[in-house]
Amino acid sequence: MSPAPPSCELCAQDGGRLVWRGPRLRVIRAEDVHFPAFYRVVWTEHVAEWSGLAPADRAWMMEAVTAVESVLRAHLRPTKVNLASLGNVVPHLHWHVIARFDWDSHFPAPVWAAAQRPVAPPAVERLACSLDVLDAAVAQAVAVACGPER
Amino acid sequence: MSPAPPSCELCAQDGGRLVWRGPRLRVIRAEDVHFPAFYRVVWTEHVAEWSGLAPADRAWMMEAVTAVESVLRAHLRPTKVNLASLGNVVPHLHWHVIARFDWDSHFPAPVWAAAQRPVAPPAVERLACSLDVLDAAVAQAVAVACGPER
Repeated sequence: MSPAPPSCELCAQDGGRLVWRGPRLRVIRAEDVHFPAFYRVVWTEHVAEWSGLAPADRAWMMEAVTAVESVLRAHLRPTKVNLASLGNVVPHLHWHVIARFDWDSHFPAPVWAAAQRPVAPPAVERLACSLDVLDAAVAQAVAVACGPER
Repeated sequence: MSPAPPSCELCAQDGGRLVWRGPRLRVIRAEDVHFPAFYRVVWTEHVAEWSGLAPADRAWMMEAVTAVESVLRAHLRPTKVNLASLGNVVPHLHWHVIARFDWDSHFPAPVWAAAQRPVAPPAVERLACSLDVLDAAVAQAVAVACGPER
């Protein structure tokens, strides 16, 4: 655990719509209009780098990331899932898990690159299920992967 | 293992300067002028998604990713390390492992966003060690994490 800078926004707040919370990590949905199925797995303690976690914690956090990816694949059949741990702006360990589609505003560029096209109707209306259903499935899968006993 | 499309460039070639090769994965350096300490861990078989790997293979591949990150941190003291598995253009499982510095051309934006500033002298000249030394340290660390017996 690193000392948390007083300004760390992922220490101070959830950082998005809370989908699941356990003692060691939480899952939030980013509420991004371009990428409605954009989740983040956020480590509770203030750790900056992936290799700053103990091996068992890395394995455990990656199980949560994989559980989210698996739900996105099963429910949405995305063209690709994108995973990333960047943290240049907020150096508090969090994994982005993003369902990407060949029709989305940026595909095949990363979500951080320039948009390539307008999308209408809105992306959220093109998903194969509602965000409520998706959130519930993500929460259930992460609870199985990272239940309270672990 | 997914069927490899005939055009998959990571099935056909290393995809960069080869740093270490084992039977199940290889590590290459991307040779990017803006980000000289940019490595990729590439799964040998054609698998598109992270959750398409068996759990033991995920654990093993992530040990290689973590070993590369640890070498970058120890040798370069970067501002941040960025990790990502995207694959929108080349959907063959590979992890980007990139040392980022607050002086680099894109920081704090992701490497896939627009450049924010020119950098002179060239980024490679600002690293705390040569790329030959870095490559050797990466190869050694990955060999320990993913030795031929595993």
